[in-house]
Amino acid sequence: MIIVLKPDATDQQINHILEKVQKLGLTPHVSKGTERTIIGIIGPEDVLRITPLEAFPGVEKVMPVLSPYKLVSREFQPEDSVIDLGNGVKIGGNKIVVMAGPCAVENYETLSEIAREVKKAGASVIRAGAFKPRTSPYSFQGLGEEGLKILKRVSVEVGLITISEVMDTRDIELVAKYVDILQIGARNMQNFNLLKEVGATKKPVVLKRGLSSTVKELLMSAEYILSAGNFNLILCERGIRTFEDSTRNTLDISAVPMVKQLSHLPIIVDPSHAAGKWGLVASLSKAAIASGADGLLIEVHSHPEDAMSDGAQSLLPVNFQELMNELTILSGAIKRKL
Amino acid sequence: MIIVLKPDATDQQINHILEKVQKLGLTPHVSKGTERTIIGIIGPEDVLRITPLEAFPGVEKVMPVLSPYKLVSREFQPEDSVIDLGNGVKIGGNKIVVMAGPCAVENYETLSEIAREVKKAGASVIRAGAFKPRTSPYSFQGLGEEGLKILKRVSVEVGLITISEVMDTRDIELVAKYVDILQIGARNMQNFNLLKEVGATKKPVVLKRGLSSTVKELLMSAEYILSAGNFNLILCERGIRTFEDSTRNTLDISAVPMVKQLSHLPIIVDPSHAAGKWGLVASLSKAAIASGADGLLIEVHSHPEDAMSDGAQSLLPVNFQELMNELTILSGAIKRKL
Amino acid sequence: MIIVLKPDATDQQINHILEKVQKLGLTPHVSKGTERTIIGIIGPEDVLRITPLEAFPGVEKVMPVLSPYKLVSREFQPEDSVIDLGNGVKIGGNKIVVMAGPCAVENYETLSEIAREVKKAGASVIRAGAFKPRTSPYSFQGLGEEGLKILKRVSVEVGLITISEVMDTRDIELVAKYVDILQIGARNMQNFNLLKEVGATKKPVVLKRGLSSTVKELLMSAEYILSAGNFNLILCERGIRTFEDSTRNTLDISAVPMVKQLSHLPIIVDPSHAAGKWGLVASLSKAAIASGADGLLIEVHSHPEDAMSDGAQSLLPVNFQELMNELTILSGAIKRKL
Amino acid sequence: MIIVLKPDATDQQINHILEKVQKLGLTPHVSKGTERTIIGIIGPEDVLRITPLEAFPGVEKVMPVLSPYKLVSREFQPEDSVIDLGNGVKIGGNKIVVMAGPCAVENYETLSEIAREVKKAGASVIRAGAFKPRTSPYSFQGLGEEGLKILKRVSVEVGLITISEVMDTRDIELVAKYVDILQIGARNMQNFNLLKEVGATKKPVVLKRGLSSTVKELLMSAEYILSAGNFNLILCERGIRTFEDSTRNTLDISAVPMVKQLSHLPIIVDPSHAAGKWGLVASLSKAAIASGADGLLIEVHSHPEDAMSDGAQSLLPVNFQELMNELTILSGAIKRKL
Repeated sequence: MIIVLKPDATDQQINHILEKVQKLGLTPHVSKGTERTIIGIIGPEDVLRITPLEAFPGVEKVMPVLSPYKLVSREFQPEDSVIDLGNGVKIGGNKIVVMAGPCAVENYETLSEIAREVKKAGASVIRAGAFKPRTSPYSFQGLGEEGLKILKRVSVEVGLITISEVMDTRDIELVAKYVDILQIGARNMQNFNLLKEVGATKKPVVLKRGLSSTVKELLMSAEYILSAGNFNLILCERGIRTFEDSTRNTLDISAVPMVKQLSHLPIIVDPSHAAGKWGLVASLSKAAIASGADGLLIEVHSHPEDAMSDGAQSLLPVNFQELMNELTILSGAIKRKL
Repeated sequence: MIIVLKPDATDQQINHILEKVQKLGLTPHVSKGTERTIIGIIGPEDVLRITPLEAFPGVEKVMPVLSPYKLVSREFQPEDSVIDLGNGVKIGGNKIVVMAGPCAVENYETLSEIAREVKKAGASVIRAGAFKPRTSPYSFQGLGEEGLKILKRVSVEVGLITISEVMDTRDIELVAKYVDILQIGARNMQNFNLLKEVGATKKPVVLKRGLSSTVKELLMSAEYILSAGNFNLILCERGIRTFEDSTRNTLDISAVPMVKQLSHLPIIVDPSHAAGKWGLVASLSKAAIASGADGLLIEVHSHPEDAMSDGAQSLLPVNFQELMNELTILSGAIKRKL
Repeated sequence: MIIVLKPDATDQQINHILEKVQKLGLTPHVSKGTERTIIGIIGPEDVLRITPLEAFPGVEKVMPVLSPYKLVSREFQPEDSVIDLGNGVKIGGNKIVVMAGPCAVENYETLSEIAREVKKAGASVIRAGAFKPRTSPYSFQGLGEEGLKILKRVSVEVGLITISEVMDTRDIELVAKYVDILQIGARNMQNFNLLKEVGATKKPVVLKRGLSSTVKELLMSAEYILSAGNFNLILCERGIRTFEDSTRNTLDISAVPMVKQLSHLPIIVDPSHAAGKWGLVASLSKAAIASGADGLLIEVHSHPEDAMSDGAQSLLPVNFQELMNELTILSGAIKRKL
Repeated sequence: MIIVLKPDATDQQINHILEKVQKLGLTPHVSKGTERTIIGIIGPEDVLRITPLEAFPGVEKVMPVLSPYKLVSREFQPEDSVIDLGNGVKIGGNKIVVMAGPCAVENYETLSEIAREVKKAGASVIRAGAFKPRTSPYSFQGLGEEGLKILKRVSVEVGLITISEVMDTRDIELVAKYVDILQIGARNMQNFNLLKEVGATKKPVVLKRGLSSTVKELLMSAEYILSAGNFNLILCERGIRTFEDSTRNTLDISAVPMVKQLSHLPIIVDPSHAAGKWGLVASLSKAAIASGADGLLIEVHSHPEDAMSDGAQSLLPVNFQELMNELTILSGAIKRKL
């Protein structure tokens, strides 16, 4: 931690800060420059992080030196985490995992049809929501437990792993009963109670980046889950909110290599929510794989015109199949497998 | 709803859309221009909003004409809502309401001291959190029910209304038992289950705007609460996330008059979280009142150096008192009262 | 300057950095902590700023301690700059200066009518563009020198100071011949040649903040002008680009007190371009004055329906008059004069 | 153009608008719905675009139907533009073009060394700036004409096409005399005079997207150049400004397929400025090619520690060579050539 003092900081103010630092068991080093005095503090930053040093008289700014996350960091674990999703599917290693399916569970027939199509094309996980976060109270809110049952039934029949969103601490047990991977949606990335409780389950979790969350904040939310005991965590870049309005969100493709540098956790990309337009999904999927992503989360619907949500961004099965063919070749070119 | 077709849309595609629209009980009007064909649809847009018209072949874009919110709109209720907070305090009318206090309940002594100071300076509501949303799992997370009890005790002793945050659907009953106004924090603005359930309580609610939420989305979240039966809602602008890094967030002062145009609900401003620096709070408070805000939510701490959170953005009681004096004069200049 | 080293930085890498620093005539201090080694450098940062220390092996990050601007800073000049605009009008002191008029010079009659109206209402400067930066090549681009002549004629007849935009280094001499205050538009805030050359003129300059420029970058652009010899500079906050789409831009009201803390230069606010809607201009003008702005730049047009640009954000003279009346009372409440 | 009227718009107001539209030679269609009246206007929107319809009494909002650009659009030219850069190099077709080199021309020896390296690795264009836009007036501003001469000499000796930035209308002739491709930097994307004048040269131009410019605005700026007569235009995505601070800018990878849908112009990507960190450049380069970009603009420096600008984001020649090897395989996987 570095404390930069104001040009007119008094000796009394400096001493007051030094006393506080020493009381916390840390060793301060004072450097008096021509224009500013600086206090460098050697030792663990955690105890300082919760002390409002900016509030001390004479302080101009406080600059942390270390990252605030630990368990998720590359320093903590240098090698990549490989997470077992069940059914022989692992994510984080050489093989790229594709999760695909409709935005929401609508009914058995539609989900079954889509599941068979995405399985045929090479996906290993079926995605479909039973609890849907919707901007409007008047929109379709999902089928709830009925939806989870349909998802479970279809997954068994077709032979796919399942992922579905959990939005409420009260629903975790219910969702965990039916699905293989718990999804925390972008709007809940900083729903800290939800993070703690999925952290207590040990189930694989996909944590989506919030619309206005930095990579660092994503890693801090991941730290909540790991520190609660669950290391089976997969991060997901799904676009951030910017001024650009030709796409629904702006896919932050740099987040993929950046997370890979900072953390050992796998990261996947959701090109469908990022773009908001199915016509861009193929390009973004290829970009994601080329940038180093460990997987994709793609919306596919056999009848987008009748989809109860997100129809405009869903691929038709035929387009999904074509994309998977292209991704297979692309994965080979970067020495990975799809 | 206006549907703009692609330049190469076929008659078959157009007929397919018209059939869909008519099946929904609506009347389409086709206008063939030199460069584009447009379909205008007369009738309630709600039924169309849930139909993915962008997914239909031949469609270039879909432009809604009406706002997606109803109960919160000025059209629904032209006159300003005035909400009774209890203890003779009303918000939304001529009198400006100031809510002040520490970020978190830390202990009885500190809260009691701060409460007496803000009461003396003219605040009518004491703010203090018992459940704290913190970016890091290693930070102070609040005292929970113990904190609520302290807040209740202090409020009775000093004679102030209370506001405190509720973060989890499971805690609503508990928080509602102790406090007068429920606060939904910025990170939970789109925690839709939480919105529905505070909507079921009838307690006054302060709904903070999300860091990356538009004014329209704020109003949609408000619609969740009103549509669940609770009209005692106060909106709160607390800064949005932008590229500017000299402040913690960017206070969107335009949101105040914009909300006033679009909605009948009261709106207050939280200058402390917007700025993140106590030295800017006075200027932003004055700007908020001058722009038409109905109240302020300000962090005040008697010992910011020892604050367990947000010390750097807390005003000292002496500065708060001075600000209140200035705001009293300013309120008079715009024909309101503090 | 603080250099934070990677956890695995070698002694050889550290020595390589120390040599470089010493070669530049500076004194490095090495602190070896438990998790990181830090090099603090005492002495002027300027010489280091142009050295790509991040490119040195073993370096994790480089944190500057001092601000990169000098002449514009409060440290360089603690007291507020008061700038003489001519005609007895000064900005930066107790009196607030209002600049008003149409977006563009359209013809003599219209400008003359508007000038008389804004003069009557209390404005002391008439604004009107002769060179217009327009997003589309097919939009009205301004009358050029003909427009400047009209502006000059009207200003003499009505008795107002003039401000008009200069967009091209080749036009500075021409514009300076006719107008009293040179305006650098938001799109040219980082047109560094233009900054240098208006810096060579000694004419008062209004420098508008770029749509995506930080406060720090605004001050750096100001530094270009001051370092070229022209201290007659007024900064202008006019809204930044964010995700919010209910307004044209997001007025960053915090920039006003922030600039006042960091710099001695006057700052004004342009509520018209920030909002993009005339219905918000009065609220934002009041907020600007309450926050401490030294002046306003407001679009006023007597016939907005016929305006050749920005009609939707122009106030009618009658509304401008009413606003000026309100601002006069408001200014009194904060002990300033309009 | 669609005009949505306020709920309380009077017949008189509606007639006033209809008269205006008819006077402009257009045909309005009025649709009276249950909640709103809408006026649809058939005919060219251009004449309406310059009429401030939002300023008319009774108007709630105006929604354009057509794109404001013409010459750059896919509708104007359905097939991809292929631009001849000279020396047998073409961009926009199957072959991907890589432009590489240092940020700035520093001296003959360094540039010559770097040029030989990038040529060997497979680049066909050398980049290096002689006029540098720098945030600080105290930073290295480029060698000017001397730098252009060095660039010219090196390019002839090594056998590479050249690209260099032009920042000022007064320098266009000079820069065009020495270099093959004129670069318009991000900060000048809306320097409309500069656009018009490079539009008059017929030289190939690379137009970089502004830090806060939408894709639509990029295309409007491109329209300036094409409408001035120069169709030899290449667009460049180089990152936009967002709240994310772990990278210098946020590469908007979606802009690549989006521009391809909307326009016939080639688009390249600059991963170096987007990331600001050399360690991310390889991942972003691969993502760019996979997403469909026609080329790359990469910073390479043989001695980044001594670079006079942007050292931290420059690749070493050895890393660049490795990247080119990977990109060659990747290009094959998507049926293109490097």
